[in-house]
Amino acid sequence: MIDKLIDEIKKKKAPLVVGLDPQLSFIPDPICEKAFEELGETLEGAAEAIWQFNKAIVDAVCDLTPAVKPQIAMYEQFGIPGLTVFERTVRYCQEKGLCVIGDIKRGDIGSTSLSYAVGHLGTTQVGKNRFSAFHEDFATVNPYLGSDGIEPFVKVCREENKGLFVLVKTSNPSSGEFQDRTVSDGNGQAGETGSTEKIYEAVAKKVVDWGSQAIGEKYGYSQIGAVVGATYPEEGKRLRTLMPKTYILVPGYGAQGGKGADLKHFFDEDGLGAIVNSSRGIIAAWKNEKYERFGPEGFAEAARAAVIDMREDINGSI
Amino acid sequence: MIDKLIDEIKKKKAPLVVGLDPQLSFIPDPICEKAFEELGETLEGAAEAIWQFNKAIVDAVCDLTPAVKPQIAMYEQFGIPGLTVFERTVRYCQEKGLCVIGDIKRGDIGSTSLSYAVGHLGTTQVGKNRFSAFHEDFATVNPYLGSDGIEPFVKVCREENKGLFVLVKTSNPSSGEFQDRTVSDGNGQAGETGSTEKIYEAVAKKVVDWGSQAIGEKYGYSQIGAVVGATYPEEGKRLRTLMPKTYILVPGYGAQGGKGADLKHFFDEDGLGAIVNSSRGIIAAWKNEKYERFGPEGFAEAARAAVIDMREDINGSI
Repeated sequence: MIDKLIDEIKKKKAPLVVGLDPQLSFIPDPICEKAFEELGETLEGAAEAIWQFNKAIVDAVCDLTPAVKPQIAMYEQFGIPGLTVFERTVRYCQEKGLCVIGDIKRGDIGSTSLSYAVGHLGTTQVGKNRFSAFHEDFATVNPYLGSDGIEPFVKVCREENKGLFVLVKTSNPSSGEFQDRTVSDGNGQAGETGSTEKIYEAVAKKVVDWGSQAIGEKYGYSQIGAVVGATYPEEGKRLRTLMPKTYILVPGYGAQGGKGADLKHFFDEDGLGAIVNSSRGIIAAWKNEKYERFGPEGFAEAARAAVIDMREDINGSI
Repeated sequence: MIDKLIDEIKKKKAPLVVGLDPQLSFIPDPICEKAFEELGETLEGAAEAIWQFNKAIVDAVCDLTPAVKPQIAMYEQFGIPGLTVFERTVRYCQEKGLCVIGDIKRGDIGSTSLSYAVGHLGTTQVGKNRFSAFHEDFATVNPYLGSDGIEPFVKVCREENKGLFVLVKTSNPSSGEFQDRTVSDGNGQAGETGSTEKIYEAVAKKVVDWGSQAIGEKYGYSQIGAVVGATYPEEGKRLRTLMPKTYILVPGYGAQGGKGADLKHFFDEDGLGAIVNSSRGIIAAWKNEKYERFGPEGFAEAARAAVIDMREDINGSI
């Protein structure tokens, strides 16, 4: 799957991801009103509005972007109807040829982690049949529980040709509270005795380990990628070196403050190695002064214009 | 909500949680066969079997246990039908007077974290209406992203009288990979310069901070609890001292190897302060030699017997 993602990035000359993180406040009134008229001001009504919004955005940007990243929390808050639209959105994007990164940040251990992995990336067995419940192409995962949490995902990725992005250094202001702590022990690992490294570097080394079992054939990048926030360019530079075969998913561009010029160190010299996400900067572009000429009815065209601008900003900096 | 949980623990003299983590292999054949006859070997059929299984277990143990902990991954793998049964299980358990700890281990930042918090513990606004999507009483959360990830949950807990259990030291063998690393920096925090502490201790201190905003009125414990595995009794002892007002949810008892005798240090002198989870040890007790006298048709009675034995084992050790 990492090979397919890179094929699409190269074809579209766009190392970017559109984050499908809809909030009701991003959706123009007429879409909400129509959905509420049909289904009431209910979870079903909200989910229908999100679906219509997503569909229009995806139609407007699918020839420009290699991938989308729906944030499942934004659907989960609307309960079962919301998650139904999450699943429908995944399927619709795949029909349009897009790679889908499920931003699910799941993380547990053993059979529990395996259940998440089969539910999101693999297939669940029921009697003689197998079902693909949420069928994303990639998923984001949380490493706090260590290898017991990640290896079941890696196993499913290898079996099903899917991929992961493991949280390494997240884009938020408080990400340093634990991720930036300097560790002085060797934790019993060869070559580390007496060394000092940050926790996020320790995680990065594990990402390299986990990923070494799942290197893509075509480009030599691993199916097991990493998340490193655009808001931490120095850390990005260091991590690029530490994880040479790891694709980096870069959130925090745009609304969170990351800029094109900050991005160049996340990429390899060949212009590959990273893919930059923008969510509200794209899907809520119509609410931004810069794109207000499109008006609420032109929200999808505004998203398209924002993707084109983002593509230029990124390609100009790498 | 922490006060209600403690009331129930005292009333039932049982500091324990039944983990509702159903796997199809735990469910006696006749229940699966009946569900598959009705709905086919489908996600719907599997979800129906889980629902019938859960209901019988809950009916059999609800007068003995103060709380249940459904593990959402086990439902999520069955897609929308599975999550529908998760929600129905939460509601059913609450109708039976049980506290429900949603073992969701979610963790994200800002508005995304808030979406998880309102979806699982709070209410989601749609127009003039508010809906409680999954309505658990407590949720487990992952701290890797720092305060930005936890504070939105704490806010919702304060507003809605709900609670959290933050992962501190997890029960799995590889939990030490990151959690046990020794930090040598002070991270700019007062009093810590030059100190050495483990990452899980740094997380524990933050749990105390976050929890200080949400102390329950009746017993003085915080709504913001911690997860510490039964498999790490020495760490449990240290953490009990570090987090005096924090309730500790203790997984890893039974199937994962934790024993009653390991548990005493997780509790305070008054016998409060911790609640011990067992999942397959209870719900799959009928498959254990010790309870095979109940047979597959007596699976719920076997679960009841296992809860009684667990209660004695824990109460005998504290």
